Amino acid sequence: MRGNFGEHFRLSIFGESHGPGIGIVIDGIPAGTPIDEDEIARFMARRAPGRDPTATARREEDRVEILSGVLDGHACGTPVCGLIRNTGMHSGDYRSLIGRMRPGHADYAGFIKYGGFNDPRGGGHFSGRLTAPLVFAGSIARAILRERGITIGSHIERIGPVHDAPLDPVHPAPALLDRLSASTFPLIDPTVETDMRRHVEEAKAVLDSVGGCVECAAVGVPAGIGSPFFGSVESVFSTLAFSVPAVKAVEFGDGTAIADLPGSQANDSMTYSDGLVTCLTNHNGGVTGGITNGMPVLVRVTLKPTPSISRPQHTVDLNTGNDTTLEIHGRHDPCIVPRAAVVIESILAIALLELSMDDAATRPS
Amino acid sequence: MRGNFGEHFRLSIFGESHGPGIGIVIDGIPAGTPIDEDEIARFMARRAPGRDPTATARREEDRVEILSGVLDGHACGTPVCGLIRNTGMHSGDYRSLIGRMRPGHADYAGFIKYGGFNDPRGGGHFSGRLTAPLVFAGSIARAILRERGITIGSHIERIGPVHDAPLDPVHPAPALLDRLSASTFPLIDPTVETDMRRHVEEAKAVLDSVGGCVECAAVGVPAGIGSPFFGSVESVFSTLAFSVPAVKAVEFGDGTAIADLPGSQANDSMTYSDGLVTCLTNHNGGVTGGITNGMPVLVRVTLKPTPSISRPQHTVDLNTGNDTTLEIHGRHDPCIVPRAAVVIESILAIALLELSMDDAATRPS
Amino acid sequence: MRGNFGEHFRLSIFGESHGPGIGIVIDGIPAGTPIDEDEIARFMARRAPGRDPTATARREEDRVEILSGVLDGHACGTPVCGLIRNTGMHSGDYRSLIGRMRPGHADYAGFIKYGGFNDPRGGGHFSGRLTAPLVFAGSIARAILRERGITIGSHIERIGPVHDAPLDPVHPAPALLDRLSASTFPLIDPTVETDMRRHVEEAKAVLDSVGGCVECAAVGVPAGIGSPFFGSVESVFSTLAFSVPAVKAVEFGDGTAIADLPGSQANDSMTYSDGLVTCLTNHNGGVTGGITNGMPVLVRVTLKPTPSISRPQHTVDLNTGNDTTLEIHGRHDPCIVPRAAVVIESILAIALLELSMDDAATRPS
Amino acid sequence: MRGNFGEHFRLSIFGESHGPGIGIVIDGIPAGTPIDEDEIARFMARRAPGRDPTATARREEDRVEILSGVLDGHACGTPVCGLIRNTGMHSGDYRSLIGRMRPGHADYAGFIKYGGFNDPRGGGHFSGRLTAPLVFAGSIARAILRERGITIGSHIERIGPVHDAPLDPVHPAPALLDRLSASTFPLIDPTVETDMRRHVEEAKAVLDSVGGCVECAAVGVPAGIGSPFFGSVESVFSTLAFSVPAVKAVEFGDGTAIADLPGSQANDSMTYSDGLVTCLTNHNGGVTGGITNGMPVLVRVTLKPTPSISRPQHTVDLNTGNDTTLEIHGRHDPCIVPRAAVVIESILAIALLELSMDDAATRPS
Repeated sequence: MRGNFGEHFRLSIFGESHGPGIGIVIDGIPAGTPIDEDEIARFMARRAPGRDPTATARREEDRVEILSGVLDGHACGTPVCGLIRNTGMHSGDYRSLIGRMRPGHADYAGFIKYGGFNDPRGGGHFSGRLTAPLVFAGSIARAILRERGITIGSHIERIGPVHDAPLDPVHPAPALLDRLSASTFPLIDPTVETDMRRHVEEAKAVLDSVGGCVECAAVGVPAGIGSPFFGSVESVFSTLAFSVPAVKAVEFGDGTAIADLPGSQANDSMTYSDGLVTCLTNHNGGVTGGITNGMPVLVRVTLKPTPSISRPQHTVDLNTGNDTTLEIHGRHDPCIVPRAAVVIESILAIALLELSMDDAATRPS
Repeated sequence: MRGNFGEHFRLSIFGESHGPGIGIVIDGIPAGTPIDEDEIARFMARRAPGRDPTATARREEDRVEILSGVLDGHACGTPVCGLIRNTGMHSGDYRSLIGRMRPGHADYAGFIKYGGFNDPRGGGHFSGRLTAPLVFAGSIARAILRERGITIGSHIERIGPVHDAPLDPVHPAPALLDRLSASTFPLIDPTVETDMRRHVEEAKAVLDSVGGCVECAAVGVPAGIGSPFFGSVESVFSTLAFSVPAVKAVEFGDGTAIADLPGSQANDSMTYSDGLVTCLTNHNGGVTGGITNGMPVLVRVTLKPTPSISRPQHTVDLNTGNDTTLEIHGRHDPCIVPRAAVVIESILAIALLELSMDDAATRPS
Repeated sequence: MRGNFGEHFRLSIFGESHGPGIGIVIDGIPAGTPIDEDEIARFMARRAPGRDPTATARREEDRVEILSGVLDGHACGTPVCGLIRNTGMHSGDYRSLIGRMRPGHADYAGFIKYGGFNDPRGGGHFSGRLTAPLVFAGSIARAILRERGITIGSHIERIGPVHDAPLDPVHPAPALLDRLSASTFPLIDPTVETDMRRHVEEAKAVLDSVGGCVECAAVGVPAGIGSPFFGSVESVFSTLAFSVPAVKAVEFGDGTAIADLPGSQANDSMTYSDGLVTCLTNHNGGVTGGITNGMPVLVRVTLKPTPSISRPQHTVDLNTGNDTTLEIHGRHDPCIVPRAAVVIESILAIALLELSMDDAATRPS
Repeated sequence: MRGNFGEHFRLSIFGESHGPGIGIVIDGIPAGTPIDEDEIARFMARRAPGRDPTATARREEDRVEILSGVLDGHACGTPVCGLIRNTGMHSGDYRSLIGRMRPGHADYAGFIKYGGFNDPRGGGHFSGRLTAPLVFAGSIARAILRERGITIGSHIERIGPVHDAPLDPVHPAPALLDRLSASTFPLIDPTVETDMRRHVEEAKAVLDSVGGCVECAAVGVPAGIGSPFFGSVESVFSTLAFSVPAVKAVEFGDGTAIADLPGSQANDSMTYSDGLVTCLTNHNGGVTGGITNGMPVLVRVTLKPTPSISRPQHTVDLNTGNDTTLEIHGRHDPCIVPRAAVVIESILAIALLELSMDDAATRPS
């Protein structure tokens, strides 16, 4: 809980947006795991700010310095600490905000929780920037999973009202997932990009923001991973997903739409195919009873519009004890959905690796 | 993970549907907490099978025997074990199914995970019956929260296409929540009950089932509960929610619909009201940055149609290695949504108590 | 913490000495593990009260009812709850004590912690009787370890000033350990039994009690189990050992005596023997850097004299707020060391299994 | 487990002796806690190498860079990462050792556990240098405890056969503890220092090393902290103590010597003193039933002689598969007991704070 996740692939996250740095300690990487810093850098770059014309103007290298646990390109088996120095902060952007609570932000909740001692600069520990360490950890997790034949990719399922083409829930092609997971604006149907970007630009033009949804799939996941109850695939993934700032909904398979189906359709019929058990449909998103069933694992994560917007907002000023009007002048993404895709892929990788390790721990030897 | 939840209000769940009994160990109940067995029995009865004409014909007393941790009606401070003996099993109903995997069920995933050693009778540990211990734990949690001024209630937001009236996200009346939380078919607008029941009966008539959605609110929750990242209110609640069999989606506030709003609307404007900070809207469901902000906590949980249906289904037979057709003859709910309401209330209580205790642990003394 | 132990082989203990029952939930037993209830009963009998002329007159069957997780003699993979009903309580023995704090007992510490709500009858949750569930869990753990070639046994290293012959730290014979672990008064040198029993009887005759030390060994433990820091073999074992009532010291290898050696002797010289790496001595008790090194794991646990004694003792009466004199009239062991042996074996088995599972979780696949 | 400790005051340790740096993430510091970097530096200096003529010649600044969680001298409430850069490494000292296993070290156990991927330079993650982050965390913990009236101090109970005067178990003066905790060679009776140092020098002269024992006390600890079973004061402290390299025994109160007493003496008689409950003796070291009883908490920790010695040792060479003779030429402490004192104080502070926070979490509100 809090800054710690996992019992096997254990994470300890730290850092504030405008402090010296952000990072993560990962305990549980199997000794000998190759650590490919170039590959990690590629994943980090997909999330990093300042890469896309529609995204925030704050540009960060997001280079990870590995402080421990890696020698000669391989994990030692001991904890790995990855540190990302903050370099592009303009704390001046935010100083004037203290006391005036930004609507939709953690400002007020954090102020109350921490008695006013939380770091307010750039959102402090609540900043979306803290997803960078998750991508670092996820990069290592997905490299381990890939060696086991698991491929993960995601696409922008929608931005506001503009939808991408759907992912085939039964046979999402690994090659497609690989293409998506190399993109900073991952779409199954590239022709919708123009509409999506226009929608974002229109919001930006009126000093507003938009949200959306990321859909993510993992193929090649063997059946039998996860547990009933609190160690269910959904429980572990959702713990991570709801840790990502701005996430308001997590769905598996058909998600909320499954309530529109009768049981006779929602039940994925099973069949032997080439001697292997498979399903003809995948309304359950590859998970039944909290455990993978061999079908692709399908998740959808809805992100709210970026709360930092420049148009005047009605709010409170804790210093004066009065209502006030607030205009936020910073460098904000009007839409963080594209940059969130690699974050969602990363946490799905972390969840599946954690659960695989739990499975290994309890397997008869 | 697995059968354990929590760091403060700690749960250890056990049991199989047709074994000797099911139960839970709860460690962390503050010493001196009154344990009202009558009140617990009332909550247990809302979930218990055989109470409603549209629900399963299996009737269970679901009486909880408290084996430890309670003396003279008060918690001792040491672990409380609640045991519910299984009494109404007809294992004969299920014996013939072994080898033939029920679609939509955990049968296949569980078979692979446990190498065929899992108890298949009545779904074993995967049975919805295992939510009874969660209601027991939740009954204790909500009694503690109620002393702190927190009221929890839920309604059947929808069954299939039939929706209840919406809950007021800003001012859900505690009296309404109390009325809902005393009902076995909780609705804001009682006039929709006929339509909902008809929809269930129609599905039952064609040997099918239906799903739906439970919406749950907690009012009186102070601001400042929860943590960023893995201890977020959403992370902790969703871990529990996705532990409940059949849940496929968890939403906070507007949930998936928040992607339809611009930031200027999704941001809940703040204002002073009678000297207290509040919000004019509640699109965020009472949680920002993973922490409560003082507004009502609003969650929605989508449950799929009961996978146990009597109409013939296409599936595999692991014994023969061939496809087969399966007809399940048991006593199944065609819709478990009404009985799920008290389960969702229970887990919201558990999540909020757990997080309150975490807050107390780290508060300066 | 508190009533929960472990991340892989997870325990949740519950119960009070004079409540309905005591028990434990074990999550993490690999599916398919044979559960031999006869063998469990034999281990339970070694700890059970009323078996030995020098031990407590309270006689308990200590029969474990398995409530979940076992079907047809094999673990299902889901949580196993073992329940031991209390049957032989004479709460009248203790009722008169309330308010008068028994010296050396948890009475006062528990009263303060639980605000007077703790169950005082028979020591409640603090009773040595709560070690019975640990023996149940340990019986399952050691059966799993034995399949992997690990043998565990212990002896009464001393009672008061009477010492047994020492255990060979380099080559403790598995056959000797087997003989010891079948005994209710395990000694390497059976000729000291008379002296030991006389020492206990002499204490009993003067209404007093005596303590002692249990030495326990595990042979066949492969090198590489355990972790540096908080997951060290010593850390995990000592967490369990200090959970056993009356334990005041835990030692590995030479323990406190290692400070008498120069480094050149304390360092166990290594050598190849039949192509395998081994040590010529075992001052480190089979653990270096928190990790097993392939040598026998050797632990010593010192238990204080039973605090329940019948001679008058000076203490406080919380009801009157005055000092008082207390005579305890119950059925107490004047020495619990012999019955503790199987408890120490059990927790060493639990620790080694937990650590083996942790090792399996992080092993490259 | 492994590199993570705690549920409330949570630690995640990382680093290798000769890697870029070592450090720790601490989650759970109450927001607003003053963080006094000068005071931290003083504690760090007591442990730091190169300060004492009898200690290692490797000199490290051990300056902690706080990367997160602190703003304007106060804890923000979010995770604090403290990083200590390694600066004084001479990896050349150790390179030649690879393959040749140092007796008494973790070399072989670590090689097996990590499949040869562990960082062998300077002992890597197994280095005693990793206790520096524990001192950093402990410095923060003890500052919090001191505000609550708890004073912690320790002395060198013995080095080899040379003993310090004993600590008064009933009334260790806080002023004495303060004096001890400001010293790099803490002794109750300063006149034994000469003998102790001579003993170390004599060992050094013959290229050998010596061990000893640190005794540590905490006064002002309120009764009621800790839990029965796995959250006992002893369990939590010993988990930490056995994480410190070279520790082979942990004792509370009289420790192993309590087996020499009859129950009538081992039971600490209780009495009212100025209206408060206290004990006339403290054989139990301030803990009964796993819970503090208001008396001083007394622990003793035995450390083995430094395993790094320069005299020739018999061992194995994994590269050649043959026995060999090894001479270690590095800068090693012939006795690490004096530098260990502040480490033991630190972990006692961490344990007591962790348990106090657990108590706060479960206290009725």
